[in-house]
Amino acid sequence: MNLGKLLIGRPLQSEELGHQTVSKPIGLAVFASDALSSVAYATEEILVILAIAAGTSWAGTGGAIFGISLPIAIAIAVLLVIVTISYRQTIYAYPNGGGAYIVARDNLGETPAQVAGAALMTDYILTVAVSISAGVAQIISAFPELLPYRVHIAVVIIIIMTVINLRGVKESGRIFAIPTFFFLAMMFLTLVIGLVRYLSGTLPTITDVQAIQYGSASTLGVFLILRAFSSGSTALTGIEAISNGITAFNEPRSRNAATTLVWMSGILITLFLGITFLANQIHALPSDDETVISQLARTVLGGENLLYYLTLAGTTLILLMAANTSYADFPRLAALHAGDGFLPRQLTYRGSRLVFSWGIMLLAVVAIALVLLTGADVSALIPLYAIGVFLSFTVSQTGMVVRMRKISRLKPGETIQGLETELTYDPRWRQKMVISGIGALCTFVVMIVFGVTKFTSGAWFIIVMIPVLVTVFFRIHHHYHDVGAALRSRQVSLGAQQSPVHVIVLIEDFHAETVNLINFVRSMGQPWHAVHVALNKGKTARLQARWAEEIQDAELVIIESPYRMLVAPIYDYIAALRHERQDQFIHIVLGQLIMDTFWEQALHQNSPFIFNLALSRLEKVAVTTVPYQIHHLTPVTSEAAEETVL
Amino acid sequence: MNLGKLLIGRPLQSEELGHQTVSKPIGLAVFASDALSSVAYATEEILVILAIAAGTSWAGTGGAIFGISLPIAIAIAVLLVIVTISYRQTIYAYPNGGGAYIVARDNLGETPAQVAGAALMTDYILTVAVSISAGVAQIISAFPELLPYRVHIAVVIIIIMTVINLRGVKESGRIFAIPTFFFLAMMFLTLVIGLVRYLSGTLPTITDVQAIQYGSASTLGVFLILRAFSSGSTALTGIEAISNGITAFNEPRSRNAATTLVWMSGILITLFLGITFLANQIHALPSDDETVISQLARTVLGGENLLYYLTLAGTTLILLMAANTSYADFPRLAALHAGDGFLPRQLTYRGSRLVFSWGIMLLAVVAIALVLLTGADVSALIPLYAIGVFLSFTVSQTGMVVRMRKISRLKPGETIQGLETELTYDPRWRQKMVISGIGALCTFVVMIVFGVTKFTSGAWFIIVMIPVLVTVFFRIHHHYHDVGAALRSRQVSLGAQQSPVHVIVLIEDFHAETVNLINFVRSMGQPWHAVHVALNKGKTARLQARWAEEIQDAELVIIESPYRMLVAPIYDYIAALRHERQDQFIHIVLGQLIMDTFWEQALHQNSPFIFNLALSRLEKVAVTTVPYQIHHLTPVTSEAAEETVL
Repeated sequence: MNLGKLLIGRPLQSEELGHQTVSKPIGLAVFASDALSSVAYATEEILVILAIAAGTSWAGTGGAIFGISLPIAIAIAVLLVIVTISYRQTIYAYPNGGGAYIVARDNLGETPAQVAGAALMTDYILTVAVSISAGVAQIISAFPELLPYRVHIAVVIIIIMTVINLRGVKESGRIFAIPTFFFLAMMFLTLVIGLVRYLSGTLPTITDVQAIQYGSASTLGVFLILRAFSSGSTALTGIEAISNGITAFNEPRSRNAATTLVWMSGILITLFLGITFLANQIHALPSDDETVISQLARTVLGGENLLYYLTLAGTTLILLMAANTSYADFPRLAALHAGDGFLPRQLTYRGSRLVFSWGIMLLAVVAIALVLLTGADVSALIPLYAIGVFLSFTVSQTGMVVRMRKISRLKPGETIQGLETELTYDPRWRQKMVISGIGALCTFVVMIVFGVTKFTSGAWFIIVMIPVLVTVFFRIHHHYHDVGAALRSRQVSLGAQQSPVHVIVLIEDFHAETVNLINFVRSMGQPWHAVHVALNKGKTARLQARWAEEIQDAELVIIESPYRMLVAPIYDYIAALRHERQDQFIHIVLGQLIMDTFWEQALHQNSPFIFNLALSRLEKVAVTTVPYQIHHLTPVTSEAAEETVL
Repeated sequence: MNLGKLLIGRPLQSEELGHQTVSKPIGLAVFASDALSSVAYATEEILVILAIAAGTSWAGTGGAIFGISLPIAIAIAVLLVIVTISYRQTIYAYPNGGGAYIVARDNLGETPAQVAGAALMTDYILTVAVSISAGVAQIISAFPELLPYRVHIAVVIIIIMTVINLRGVKESGRIFAIPTFFFLAMMFLTLVIGLVRYLSGTLPTITDVQAIQYGSASTLGVFLILRAFSSGSTALTGIEAISNGITAFNEPRSRNAATTLVWMSGILITLFLGITFLANQIHALPSDDETVISQLARTVLGGENLLYYLTLAGTTLILLMAANTSYADFPRLAALHAGDGFLPRQLTYRGSRLVFSWGIMLLAVVAIALVLLTGADVSALIPLYAIGVFLSFTVSQTGMVVRMRKISRLKPGETIQGLETELTYDPRWRQKMVISGIGALCTFVVMIVFGVTKFTSGAWFIIVMIPVLVTVFFRIHHHYHDVGAALRSRQVSLGAQQSPVHVIVLIEDFHAETVNLINFVRSMGQPWHAVHVALNKGKTARLQARWAEEIQDAELVIIESPYRMLVAPIYDYIAALRHERQDQFIHIVLGQLIMDTFWEQALHQNSPFIFNLALSRLEKVAVTTVPYQIHHLTPVTSEAAEETVL
């Protein structure tokens, strides 16, 4: 308990939950880390795919093939602009938060909402795995001697992050702001210096990189270009964060959130195109032990100097921040589902630190499993990533199209109440519907391209997982629904009178704990008898003799156990009794030795837990545990003392 | 339950426990697999150490340095002869089984016995890890494409072996005999062909081995030679097995066991020296991807033909058999300790298949951890191995020296009763004492050499672990001792009369399960009241209204929970009540929804378990669980039904 308190911190009151609102720059820092951090790996992942055709150097056709990364990045930037414009509309339409789950439930119904939720949840888990792996890759670029510990470092970071989040992160925007702005400062400094050196002709190319090796070279076809485009489109992950968090902004919150979204997209496009352009100029190559960001920084900044280390530190920090946002988003989304009865209710239970402890633990366990399975390799994780987020983009924007169609049917000035928001007539509904429609179509096409080009390298897993998850969600929903109905409809009527309960006491031996147990049973004042399972002949005989001598008011029944099992004979005995006395309650009473510490407790058979589990299958069989505490043991001399303890 | 039965098999009756006795050849097959299997790696581990000085080829001084392996093997064979002669005496002195634990407890007292037991237990675990890793190394030699799956294969084999042993291996010697004799046949065939080819000058040398690489070459000094000797002395592990299993032999069992021990040592020495000699002739090199046995077999047998694969299969089989013997020995030894109160009593509990389930599980978990930590690399495990077994040799033989001194004090023809056996005057006591003394001294020296030369490469861990284990054993022993004394001495007297118990019912909601709960409480016929923790204001208000309407005989107390916790407010409430009513029992009653399947159950808060845990700290607070089963759910239409379920 004390260790838990030390690690997890003091509990917080419900009243402390309310959070303060933030300005646009702080909002940018809080919500943009996930999106902005993707520039740390998006360019590199395009080059990883192009290297299949280009080989391991810029010599020959290599340069031309790697050079295609810039047009690909421009295409991704165009997609980003479309999605940004479309999401601005969502922010204005849903001032109380317009996550894909909410928008889908409001406009499309329960099934699309569950699909969007399942897609986002897989993606939040992958954000942790990808961002931490990418962060570790930056650390290894700076300190290559840590390469053998890649997986260890990633797992330790996830564990530390989990403990911090179980403590609960106080949503103090200012602290979040520091790494984001530090990263932006270092990144823009690098890009500006790089551009100046490029224009002045003093930007060198890099030659000492150990590029990744593919078994056999391939030719560059449409498929490979689309695959590179898919890898790069992971740059879009995280841009939905602002639409989830509109309520955190100062008033007028929709306008502030929308402005922040535009800033964020502008910065993201600038960084992404800048990095991709300069990476081409310096002839950066994808490598297992040095990231493209590291190659860029040391080439532009003139070697492994202080600025270089600060740039990598900033990049690592923003990637860790991005992973951390999933620790807030995943449990919150899981709790939304659980509150609607689509996930176990326990996920709505806030731990003592006002956070969704179960969701955090689940996120950590799955993310660690992914890191272990892929060896913390970003390129191995990328095919799993982004399908979920593009699916949720598609569902959300389709929801907006449906919403606009509803609005189009209203008379000018008319307002009706939707599920989540009011719908007011909007003369510009046609224009807005077209924008959302184009957004939905684009993200849908990208999702298909992603699924097809990455299918065999891992996307199949997510394509299988999402329908499986949605099916599980609905099965859970039906379960809760049915249990609720069963509990309300069952014809169990209140019985007014006392009817004798049959009390059976389980006896293992005869000592102080047994006396305590018998005292409890006698104090209830009901007829009872005792039952003992014969596991050891001498012990049973001693017990019978002692019983005959001291207990007159109750019989001691001995049950044989040829297989030396404890629970099964008791179960059979009570099941037989249950059969005899159909409507009466049977009340099983058993003692339990309670020690001061966990380790002492582990030295004793903890049978009450096992009995509770086994006997709960029998109807109308109540099980009572009577604890007997043993404190502060002091050494005693008797040699045979321990023989009395089972 | 059904899956468990399928995997673990039908339960066995106590009467089925008795085992049949076996002849000498079958006894050899059953008990010798551990010892004989060590020839599969002992030669290789000598070469691994010599390679530090010899480099990676037989060219130059390499041949002379690797050639030292033969004199080292001869020295180990001499040690083996000494230990064999010494252990023959133990077998005659302890016809009921003369394991180190028994001999030490009988002659030296409790502490040396615990030391010997702890040492043997660490070694049994390592036998599993080393033998399985060595077996996998043979498989990989034959199928190098499996190299990346080395650890996976080892872990899967351990898991399969664990399941088989949880089912219980019927001690049918004949089945055990097949792999042992198959291994011996293939090994002797290889050695004879190898010797014939050597004598006829047609034995080639091997050149295509990828030898292990050390960072920097070292010179061959006394330290390195001693270290190689230590590595090779792992050939002695397992020779104590026959002295543990004397009772399994046909009468006259001591003589049969002693003869089998001599056979076993003879075979072991022949194989070990033969393999080492031929390995030198063919210029075998230690390698990560091919074992010395594989190099020897393919060179001698003329390539990778059927005979080669059969030889490797035989070697793999005997290594798996060796690991399997630990599955019998470890739980049996742990149960001996537990029976004497030095390990948790649960270890004496036989599972339904008459085996020591807990011991088997513990063995499997630690062995898997070792395999994972070392990457299933035999050379990484060897420094941990054999210290334990040499310590137990030393303790056991010292015990025999003490025993002979006791016998020397008897008059001719006199017999006295010892703890385990009778002591009879023996005119040859002096000779026997010298033999055991030499044995004890030799194994002690080897243990010290092993500890010093392998200290930094892993032996330190075992050197630290053994005293830690012994300390833990004694702490456990004192705990059981003290609890037994406390239970017998506490002055709790039987109370004859009924005294009112205070009954408190925990209520979460008002539905069928609640009605069932109230019916149970009313049937006990004692005064009661209900308690509800307010987590949701609307729900609490609805419950209060319903309560006022339907329940007249009991008050409903509402407890506020500002931190939205369930258990803590209840605990505080009851602790306060406990304080008020010092000597009375408090009886807490709570309901539990029981579903048909584990997964359905997992969707509901399983609070009884948590309450039992939390409230067991309070004295005289009994907790009763009243289950309410929900079977065969059928869909109901009501939309809001699930809202009634917590």
